[in-house]
Order: sequence, then structure tokens, then C-alpha cells
Amino acid sequence: MSSLSTAIQQIKKVRPLIHNITNLVATEFSANALLSLGASPLMAHAPEELEEIIQLSNALVLNIGTIDVRQRESMFMALSLACQKDIPILLDPVGAGASKFRTQTALDLLQHAKEKRGRLVLKGNASEIMSLAGHFIQSKGVDSNVGADSADYLLDAAKNLITTYNIETVGITGKDDFIVGKNNQHALNSHGHPLMSQITATGCILTAITAAFCAVDSDLFSATQNAFKCLSLAGEASAEKSQGQGLGSFKVQLINELSLL
Amino acid sequence: MSSLSTAIQQIKKVRPLIHNITNLVATEFSANALLSLGASPLMAHAPEELEEIIQLSNALVLNIGTIDVRQRESMFMALSLACQKDIPILLDPVGAGASKFRTQTALDLLQHAKEKRGRLVLKGNASEIMSLAGHFIQSKGVDSNVGADSADYLLDAAKNLITTYNIETVGITGKDDFIVGKNNQHALNSHGHPLMSQITATGCILTAITAAFCAVDSDLFSATQNAFKCLSLAGEASAEKSQGQGLGSFKVQLINELSLL
Amino acid sequence: MSSLSTAIQQIKKVRPLIHNITNLVATEFSANALLSLGASPLMAHAPEELEEIIQLSNALVLNIGTIDVRQRESMFMALSLACQKDIPILLDPVGAGASKFRTQTALDLLQHAKEKRGRLVLKGNASEIMSLAGHFIQSKGVDSNVGADSADYLLDAAKNLITTYNIETVGITGKDDFIVGKNNQHALNSHGHPLMSQITATGCILTAITAAFCAVDSDLFSATQNAFKCLSLAGEASAEKSQGQGLGSFKVQLINELSLL
Repeated sequence: MSSLSTAIQQIKKVRPLIHNITNLVATEFSANALLSLGASPLMAHAPEELEEIIQLSNALVLNIGTIDVRQRESMFMALSLACQKDIPILLDPVGAGASKFRTQTALDLLQHAKEKRGRLVLKGNASEIMSLAGHFIQSKGVDSNVGADSADYLLDAAKNLITTYNIETVGITGKDDFIVGKNNQHALNSHGHPLMSQITATGCILTAITAAFCAVDSDLFSATQNAFKCLSLAGEASAEKSQGQGLGSFKVQLINELSLL
Repeated sequence: MSSLSTAIQQIKKVRPLIHNITNLVATEFSANALLSLGASPLMAHAPEELEEIIQLSNALVLNIGTIDVRQRESMFMALSLACQKDIPILLDPVGAGASKFRTQTALDLLQHAKEKRGRLVLKGNASEIMSLAGHFIQSKGVDSNVGADSADYLLDAAKNLITTYNIETVGITGKDDFIVGKNNQHALNSHGHPLMSQITATGCILTAITAAFCAVDSDLFSATQNAFKCLSLAGEASAEKSQGQGLGSFKVQLINELSLL
Repeated sequence: MSSLSTAIQQIKKVRPLIHNITNLVATEFSANALLSLGASPLMAHAPEELEEIIQLSNALVLNIGTIDVRQRESMFMALSLACQKDIPILLDPVGAGASKFRTQTALDLLQHAKEKRGRLVLKGNASEIMSLAGHFIQSKGVDSNVGADSADYLLDAAKNLITTYNIETVGITGKDDFIVGKNNQHALNSHGHPLMSQITATGCILTAITAAFCAVDSDLFSATQNAFKCLSLAGEASAEKSQGQGLGSFKVQLINELSLL
């Protein structure tokens, strides 16, 4: 496993191009988070250009936070192309569980990536991951409304998703973060700060950042661990330096910290 | 009427979910303003999921700032569902008067809410409110180009709109703000700061914030008053603390102030 | 040629309305940059209202950074209307060269403006300008992959584009910026700071700002020069004042500087 500092140096050296099809809330923040880290963001969704854009890209982010049918089509097309080119794919199933459309879109993307043999990292919060794994848990007679803070159930859900969809790594955010790999690996990240969930799209920039780490490290489990550690350390430093100032300053400082790593 | 501090405590306790169909400029800022106050923002527009999303929501924001025909359809659908579920609806007719499409879309949404017996708060600047009330004023032989700073004409316009469309409350921003209720109430808010109109989407976040207050207070006139007071006090404090620094710092400080209330 | 300070005073006095059809990353930042300078931003793309919106506007910005076929249609319609009303048009061919769809869309917009006798300023980075001029260079047997930092090739490309499409002015960003006018004028701008390219959409706000200068100065070559100088001086000041703090603070300070000019 690369150390965090080696991985960051690698990003700054390679300047990987990260293609994002993401939600309307997270667009600018994602671009600035990627730039702060030294990666290159690119946002594009027109079917007319996806093939060429993916040819230029080193990783793909699919974030369903403001999904609609047209964006869904772009995502499937980009996903196919990313599988063909064998670049890492990050799926952020924002709001899975809140509507059947979101849950099903996320599951369909996972299935599509499996069929196309894509290298996919799934990143969500506990509730989203549990929603996606819902039927597996249910089929074992376990209440699907189980407390999502239960580490055992979460790990079980992640492992089920990995097996079913040939996912490389599942990253789960929460009070503690869990990273679960396809080779029976799992890791805990206890860094971070509660303020991170009080500004919008922090989860979304984590997904974007994870794509940057995955673009320069073929071990996606290790890359995801580094990404989680990177943002949560930045969150801790930002909370400390902006203490007592409020959420506006916290957000500015979060980008500051990412750019000073 | 709840005091402002009681209302804010209530928002932080309930953490109401505010569903926004809003413009492309205000998306991230609205989400951060709501989070700063302790509410939960949700952005979604796909017809496939609106029914489930509205079921989860405690208030709905419709903001026509970058409206097009597809978003218009989503708004009508969300409006119907919000009326059915009886959650408060905030309509921000951004740019009404600048094009027939905007003016008519706002009027059609008002008419639709009336027919579906929705509880609606209309929030706009003087020019937008006068545009929407245009034909009523005209029918009384009054020049519709009357100075929009005239309090009497504004109150008259608001009362006409309330009567015509069964609106609960009309909030009008300007040098002084006016809040006009359906039971012949009206209130003045003289707080605020000129810098608030020199950053984009301040009016839009006021609408989003008003939705949060309306979600925890069945008296929508009182809720709107509190929301206007809340943001204008934050604006005053922000102007003072960022004095001489410029508009970038003013915006950061505005979110700081909202999060420290 | 107006001095920079005279031009800025003129913007603050006239408060020109700048109509933007722009990308999803740059929307909010563009609006705030325009407001900071004293101009009025307006974002609208619905074909139903473009005619009225252009009637109100003093300049039009077309930025293809997240282009798709529907936005492309809106751009052509807005372009025609802007030519008819004879307001200055700013084209930012973001990502030209990255896909045929982008390159061709930019070239088609240039051709359309030529046919409609529009007054157009093209603003891009060296790579985008070279991509658009590609076939001219190729037709002279020169390798189109020539180093884009070569001033001579850039000036040649700009002049070719000016002649072919009757462009008023071409602005090219890079380590040094070049502004090339239709009457064989060219100017160099060596101000600016490397940090400007490390936050997203700085190029996009330069285009928006240039539209504001063009709206108050019929000499578009001079207006473009002033706009480039304006933002690059703000960038220098911002880099100095935010030194060691990071990219979050740099971006806040950039808006501060624009608002304090």
C-alpha cells in the first residue's frame, strides 16, 4: 500500500484527468477539490462526446445526486466506455433508498459494470449502502431497518455487494468510515469531524477525490483508504483552524487544507 | 407568533427536509444556507421520483430562476404532490416580468396551487411581485409602471395576489421588506444590508430559509417574518464583520452567521 | 482606449446586464464575479424567453464547458438574437480540441456569428485557440501539434480565425496572455498568477468579465485588454493577500479584489 504522502505526490505528478458526471449541487466544489489536490477535473455529459472524453480520462465519477433519465443514459454510456478503457469507476449512489428510481439506477449501474468487467469502487453513507444491499439482508431474515450504525451489518452488506457485483472496493462514510475490499480486506477510518456533514457535498468531493487516488494506484482498496484518510485529515485540520468561525469559513479552510497537503 | 430564537431551535431540533427545485446559480448556496440553519436540503427534479421525495419532505421550494419547459413540468408535478401532502410551498418567481414565459409560469403555478388548495408563500422582490399583480393594477386604471418602491402599491399588489390565488403569505424584498398575510396582516422588516444584493442568490437562499421556518411553524405569516428577520440580521452582522474586506468575505461570513445563530 | 479605471467606473455606472449561457461549473462564480465588478448577471436558456431576455441584455456570453445538444440550440438562438440587436457576443470554446462535438460547436457558432454579422470576441486558452485554427495551420503544412506556447503560432492562429470568421477580437490566456484585434492590433498581458489556474472556472469568469467591459466600450479590442488586465491584477493581489493560506482563501480573495477595484 502506498503511503498517503506518496499517493498525493503521485497525483500532483501525474495530474490525472477525472471525468465527472455528477449532481448540480456538487459540481463546482468537486472541481475545486480535485484541483486543490493536483488532479484535473472535467465535467461532460453529452453522448456526442463521451467516447473522446473517456479516452482522455484516467478515472470516471458517477454521482446520482440529481439524476434524471437523460443523465442516467449518459452515465450508462460513460460507464461502458470506462469499462472498455479499463479506468477506475467511482459510483456515488447519493440518496439511494430515498426513491426507487435512485436505488434502481444505482443497482443497474452496478450490474452494468459487472457485465462489462469494470473496476468499480462504490462509495456511500451507511444508509445508502444498506439500501443497495437491502434484499440480501432481507433474504436472510434480517430486518432491513437495522441500525445502520452497526458495523457488523455494514460489513456484511458491503461484502454481499462486492460478491454480487464484482465490486473492487466499497467505502462507507459515517461516524467511523469503513473501507471493504474484494479480497476480504477491511479497514476503519476514525478520522474526520462532524462539521464535514454540515456543509453540502462533502461526501461528493470524497468520491471525486477517491477517483483521483484510484487513477494513480492500481490497488483500489489502498487508494480508497488513502482518499478517505486524506479528506478526513483535511476536515480535522479545517475544523481546528476555523474553530468558532462558522460553516462558511470551515468550507473555505477545507479547500485550503486540501491544497496544502 | 414564535420568537425567532424559538423558531431556530425548532428547526435545529426537527431538521426539516426541504425539497428544492431551484435555479442553477443558487443550488449549492441554497443547500449550504439550509444546512447552516440546521435544516436538511434535498435537490431532485426527475418525475420518476418526485412522489417519493415529496413524501419525505417537510416543505417544497419552487424557484424559476433558470426555468425551462422540462423543469416547469417537474415543478407542476411536485406542486400537486405537495398540495396533496399539505406541506408548505415556497414560490420564488425569479425574473417575473423579464419574460412572458417566466411571468406566466409563476402565475400558472399560483393558479395550480389555488386549485389544489395548497398552502403557498410567494416570495419575490418588488418588481417581480408588481409584475405578477400587473393586470389587477392595470384593471383599476393604475399605471403598472408605478415606482416599485411605493409601499402602498406593493401592499395593494400583495393583497390582490392573496385574494386571487388564496396565497397564505406574500414576502417582498427591497430596501424595506414587507410581509403580507392572508388575514389582513402586514409587517415591515427594516433589517438587512445593501451588500446582500451584491452577491448572487441571496434572494434565493431567503426563499429556501423561509421554507425551513414554514416547515416547523403552521403560521406561515409568522414563519415568513422570522425567516426575513433571520437572514437580514445575518446580513447585518456579516457586513459588519467583513467590513472593508470585499464581497467574497461577505458571502463566507453570511454562511458563518447563519450557522452561529 | 479607455483606461482600466475609467472602464470600471463605466461598468459601475451603467450596470450592464450580461446574459450568460454557460457551463454548470462556472454558473455561480460567474454571477458573483459580474456582481463584484458592478455588472448585472442573468442566466437563462429556455428558447421560450430568449428573445425577451436578449432585448434586455447588453452583452451575451456563450460558454460551451458542459455543452449538450439542447444547450447548443439555445446558444444558436441567443446568438442570432444578439446579432440582430447588435450587442457584443463573447464565445468561450471551453475544451475545444477535447472532442469533435466541442470543436465543431465552437466553429459552427463562429460561422453563424459571421453570417449574422455579429460583433464577436473569442476567448480561450492557447490549446483551445490552436484547436479551432487547426485546419488553417495544417493546410500550410505546419504540424498542428506545435507547442501552444509559441507566441508566433498563436498570433498566426488568432489572425487566421479573425479573417475567416470576421471576429472582432481574440483573447488568448496562458503564462502570457495575448489580445489580437481585427485591425492588425495585438497586445500582451503579462500580469496574473499561477494560482489562477488552480481554482476552477477562472477562465470562465474572465469571459464573463470581458462581456461586461465590452458592454460599455464599443472598442472591443480595448475592452478585452482592460478585462484581461482587470482580472489578472485582481489575481496578483489575491495571491499576495492570501499567501500561504491555500486555494480556498485565494478564491474568496479574488472576489474581494474584484469588488474593491
